[in-house]
Amino acid sequence: MSDPRPVGVFDSGIGGLTVLAAIRNALPGENYLYLGDTARLPYGTKSSETVTRYALRAARFLVAQDIKLLVVACNTASAAALPVLEAALLPLPVIGVVIPGAAQAARVSRGAVGVIGTESTIASSTYTRAVLNRRPELRVVTQACPLFVPLAEEGWFDHPVTRDVARIYLAPLLEASVDTVILGCTHYPLLKGAIAQEMGPETNLVDSAEAVAAEVAAYLGKEGRRREAALGGLRVYITDTTERFRRIAQTIIPSGISALELVDLPG
Amino acid sequence: MSDPRPVGVFDSGIGGLTVLAAIRNALPGENYLYLGDTARLPYGTKSSETVTRYALRAARFLVAQDIKLLVVACNTASAAALPVLEAALLPLPVIGVVIPGAAQAARVSRGAVGVIGTESTIASSTYTRAVLNRRPELRVVTQACPLFVPLAEEGWFDHPVTRDVARIYLAPLLEASVDTVILGCTHYPLLKGAIAQEMGPETNLVDSAEAVAAEVAAYLGKEGRRREAALGGLRVYITDTTERFRRIAQTIIPSGISALELVDLPG
Repeated sequence: MSDPRPVGVFDSGIGGLTVLAAIRNALPGENYLYLGDTARLPYGTKSSETVTRYALRAARFLVAQDIKLLVVACNTASAAALPVLEAALLPLPVIGVVIPGAAQAARVSRGAVGVIGTESTIASSTYTRAVLNRRPELRVVTQACPLFVPLAEEGWFDHPVTRDVARIYLAPLLEASVDTVILGCTHYPLLKGAIAQEMGPETNLVDSAEAVAAEVAAYLGKEGRRREAALGGLRVYITDTTERFRRIAQTIIPSGISALELVDLPG
Repeated sequence: MSDPRPVGVFDSGIGGLTVLAAIRNALPGENYLYLGDTARLPYGTKSSETVTRYALRAARFLVAQDIKLLVVACNTASAAALPVLEAALLPLPVIGVVIPGAAQAARVSRGAVGVIGTESTIASSTYTRAVLNRRPELRVVTQACPLFVPLAEEGWFDHPVTRDVARIYLAPLLEASVDTVILGCTHYPLLKGAIAQEMGPETNLVDSAEAVAAEVAAYLGKEGRRREAALGGLRVYITDTTERFRRIAQTIIPSGISALELVDLPG
């Protein structure tokens, strides 16, 4: 049985578009609704209570559009709020970005995993627990990188300043000889060049986007709920309008967005 | 007649504490209520409609505590929302940070004024208009500096990375030979060292905090509404709790905060 309803993807802002692009690449026939909560971004410097409140409200907006699956394409929201979202939205399936990324790192690591993310994601220790649940013998080293999101939003993807900041943030990971680094924030793939240069060619960089895309494809296939069509549409909602969003969205989704709409989330 | 009611000071987050510190230095006998809207920060990357909505809600919270004067200690909110706030809160007097800073720059400039601020403040052109209203013959050059706020919040006040970023952002101001630079964001005084080094010792740096403090003192004095006491209290409200706020607040207000309280602003 095929299910024509759209897949909902939610992020605090623009970073989740990297996840959306990977899912859409794997499943081009689906329709997608994307919500970027740009009026309240960033989530990464806020408390888990506040992030949970924002995430619930955003999820409910997408659920009201009759989606068949919710992807939480924001590491901070996944780390802080996934169990609450799953319980609140039952029986809707919810897939976050943390578990697929952690599982992939646990599969490929030879001994030590580094996790980089926002302050909130790192403080939650969600990645550390998810990796150690799978392979308790691994060492996990974590590092918050608060400047990476603003650097990505400034468009300084492979800029000398970004390389200097990467050198500072990643020094403890190099010192701990990690062989695998989880890019624990959806903005970080935009800085992959600078991060890879600093960590060296021997280090695995785990981009959760690919892992999430594989999980979404597997889930819909198993349930027989893929939409059978050549090409689906993409509708993007944001809670605040800025030129910045348009500009960066163009870089991540060069094929274009069918509709971009401003919505006001109450509460 | 003296007026014992508190002075309300509002900012999107932590930066306004630099303004509060200057006012308190000028008027230590007053009681102060400070609200940092940390659940929604930063304002500087958001649209003026959204900033206005947030600012109104925050202002109403302070007004409900029976303040005698509201200081909008946030350049983005002052630039986007001051006329709306003044109209909505009548007859409460409202003082923003833009006009006092622009007036001081217009007083001291010898020909060319640079304005640095958030994307939203620069896009509003509010500083440019305020300077040119006073001295139409001046040249005004503006530059948005989106990374300065995250650098200040990271605590990298006089850090090599901050100096590199300052070199990039301030190059157009140096090229235009400005003699005066308005620090058009309350976070920027924290980076004054790096900015001064780049602009050189001949350039006036206008820190609105001092100008606002002078205006508040003049207003309360003129109206006979100062509180006659040796030392007043400081009550701080924030809309989201983070360690980060406590840590940076300690740097700006070393004498301490009487009470720090979490509040939930609806809507």
